[in-house]
Amino acid sequence: MQLASISKLENFVDQEVTLRGWLYNRRGKGKLLFLILRDGTGHVQCVCFRPDMDPELFARLEKLTYESSIQVTGVVKKDERSQGGFEIGVKDVKVVSEAEENYPIAIQEDTPNIDHLLDNRHLWIRSKIPHATLRIRNEVVQAIRDFFYEREFILVDSPIFTPNACEGTTNLFEVDYFDEKAYLTQSGQLYNEATCMAHGKTYCFGPTFRAEKSKTRRHLTEFWMVEPEMAYAGLDDVMDLCEDFLSYVVERCLTRARKWLDILGRDVTKLENVTKPFPRISYADACAKIIEKRAQLLASGSDDEKRIAKDAMTEPGDDFGAADETIIGMIFDKPTMVHRYPKSIKAFYMKADPQQPEYALCVDVIGPEGAGELIGGGEREDSLDNLLAAIKHHKLPEEAFKWYLDLRRYGSVPHAGFGLGVERTVGWICGNPHVRETIPFPRLLHRLSP
Amino acid sequence: MQLASISKLENFVDQEVTLRGWLYNRRGKGKLLFLILRDGTGHVQCVCFRPDMDPELFARLEKLTYESSIQVTGVVKKDERSQGGFEIGVKDVKVVSEAEENYPIAIQEDTPNIDHLLDNRHLWIRSKIPHATLRIRNEVVQAIRDFFYEREFILVDSPIFTPNACEGTTNLFEVDYFDEKAYLTQSGQLYNEATCMAHGKTYCFGPTFRAEKSKTRRHLTEFWMVEPEMAYAGLDDVMDLCEDFLSYVVERCLTRARKWLDILGRDVTKLENVTKPFPRISYADACAKIIEKRAQLLASGSDDEKRIAKDAMTEPGDDFGAADETIIGMIFDKPTMVHRYPKSIKAFYMKADPQQPEYALCVDVIGPEGAGELIGGGEREDSLDNLLAAIKHHKLPEEAFKWYLDLRRYGSVPHAGFGLGVERTVGWICGNPHVRETIPFPRLLHRLSP
Repeated sequence: MQLASISKLENFVDQEVTLRGWLYNRRGKGKLLFLILRDGTGHVQCVCFRPDMDPELFARLEKLTYESSIQVTGVVKKDERSQGGFEIGVKDVKVVSEAEENYPIAIQEDTPNIDHLLDNRHLWIRSKIPHATLRIRNEVVQAIRDFFYEREFILVDSPIFTPNACEGTTNLFEVDYFDEKAYLTQSGQLYNEATCMAHGKTYCFGPTFRAEKSKTRRHLTEFWMVEPEMAYAGLDDVMDLCEDFLSYVVERCLTRARKWLDILGRDVTKLENVTKPFPRISYADACAKIIEKRAQLLASGSDDEKRIAKDAMTEPGDDFGAADETIIGMIFDKPTMVHRYPKSIKAFYMKADPQQPEYALCVDVIGPEGAGELIGGGEREDSLDNLLAAIKHHKLPEEAFKWYLDLRRYGSVPHAGFGLGVERTVGWICGNPHVRETIPFPRLLHRLSP
Repeated sequence: MQLASISKLENFVDQEVTLRGWLYNRRGKGKLLFLILRDGTGHVQCVCFRPDMDPELFARLEKLTYESSIQVTGVVKKDERSQGGFEIGVKDVKVVSEAEENYPIAIQEDTPNIDHLLDNRHLWIRSKIPHATLRIRNEVVQAIRDFFYEREFILVDSPIFTPNACEGTTNLFEVDYFDEKAYLTQSGQLYNEATCMAHGKTYCFGPTFRAEKSKTRRHLTEFWMVEPEMAYAGLDDVMDLCEDFLSYVVERCLTRARKWLDILGRDVTKLENVTKPFPRISYADACAKIIEKRAQLLASGSDDEKRIAKDAMTEPGDDFGAADETIIGMIFDKPTMVHRYPKSIKAFYMKADPQQPEYALCVDVIGPEGAGELIGGGEREDSLDNLLAAIKHHKLPEEAFKWYLDLRRYGSVPHAGFGLGVERTVGWICGNPHVRETIPFPRLLHRLSP
């Protein structure tokens, strides 16, 4: 018995192989029965010809329930018309386990009920679209790790349990930690600032948590974030890194996950366009462009565009909302690096631009096609005095930052980094705006299972 | 100005470079001043010759505080006697930021105070031993990811928030999840069983949590675990995978992290010995060997060995304790695969051995040199009826397992996998028995900061 996987059939043309998987779909036509087998690596059509088969087995296969596990033995044939380019001429089928009737997930949902699908996420992940989406996630994550490993960034995992609610408890999940209170991390950045002083260039990559009550297509309570940090680096270094990084990750998906993008029906020309350089535009200039585009959309846009435009900014000053980000994504067809936001709307640790101290040396990278903010980053305040003043100004508890302040007492250097949300990135690459579909088991305001 | 990193000096012999880092150590000798610079990638001796330098700068460098950040410009010289093989003939030094006096960490701790060091973990990670240890962790983690990626296991992250305290709340951390209770994951295995039915071969790799009150050198409340799972696989496949996997990870460290193992003073011959095949021994046979070795140690062992022997088992039946594992690690000089433990002491989802149903088709891999259990795994129960009976027998809430039982209702297949703890593995490879030193920011019973 020569075992094979569906993704490797090209190595077995005209040979007899045994495939192990599950019955995904079926159709019959006269003496022919077509079984669509999935084995986790792909799908293949297995052709059963009645005169060549045991009549009892053929009859059983005509009625076999979907998702039954089966082992198919047959000859691999080239077939240009088939998805994947091959089909199997079946000699024998062994039923490993017959599935119960009424498998909860239909192959094609005409009116998909998202709650039903999420309730059955443990089964839904077997369907073509979720399966392909998670394949792309797999490629994105490995590409991220390879990118940093190859460039000699050192993985230094930041802790999940953190002792202080440094910036207020609003969006923090609280944990009973023996007799203390602990909080689940929202970002590893402060820890990265310590680790980059030890290793030069570091990154952390793990789950982060936000107890946000908002129910939007862009939010999860549990999501994965990768955060690099570099010692002896500034805002321009971060922007260079963002460009190299995002174009690398997209290129990896185009070359190594193309098959899955095709299954999703993704317009890959949009992704092929994600090459260096990316637009770099100041917050002030970006606001002017948003306001101009807003007027234009209100005057002559589609209904959808008008709706977006109504929510967009009418004057600079605030952080961007979803509508502003969407408009940026309409103006530019590449990820766009918006730098130097007003210092007042950014976190206390952001360094002021010495040329114009009311702006911070920060950057947000906003994806095209409505992807929203993919990256937030910038240069960190490296002066002890400035940082102490910022902590006071923001009315933060100085004691909680004692160790963080040590980094400025002992060998402070200019340093900078960013954070990228994995789910938004996967959603953008897949062309799927719902981040809940880009993580295997999404956690949302009212969703904690399966 | 030609920037360079210490790890790449071989590319700049006899050239002038600028290095950016921190003052790690210093000694003077007549007209010479030796500055040991660290830049995150390594350490190098920078030689200042008084007659060649600005007197004011020379005087400042003679007193410069440790961990001050400095930028050193000079010529790279080959020097066989130096660690790393190079030294720098200094032309100029720029002080970026002078560190405060009394840096809390001494370069060589004669009587290290572990609590003080852990309190200052954000600085301690700059010291040679923690720095090298975290470099090895970086290599171990990337090796793990590459191993599974290259073998086409698909990364499918399991959730951190889980809805049910399936097996009791004793060691679980509880979280206020809006108006519900959630628990932090102890293992992604049950989810992996769902994902391997979708992708064939999967793994998850993330932080896991145990609210254990024990204070041992082998326990953390937050640690990282990698868990592969394969559909259409059994116990032998898992043992083959364990062998391939552990020997790959060790080999990667030997080839790519050798420099850091040397800094730790690790006896690498012990690691070079970690090649396939590993011993495979049944629980029953392992018990007999432990009991035999126990008697031998009690009769003629050292005091330490006698102490261990006293804690070891005197008859088969229980799970192994630390002493039993240590003895296994004395008997065999490779990771040892102990299979088929009594079913009664293993989790409900373990499949019974059809040949001897009182034993489970499971395996623990026990490391040599007192490393303890590195891996636990085995074949999972794939029969719905048997699993329902096990859930009843263990008095577990059937409702909480509804989705898990679905995996046996729809397309059940033999499947198997394992879990490996990253910190114990890093500790074993580093030759450091304390897992608290193998994770950047350890979380322990009474330690939640920094």
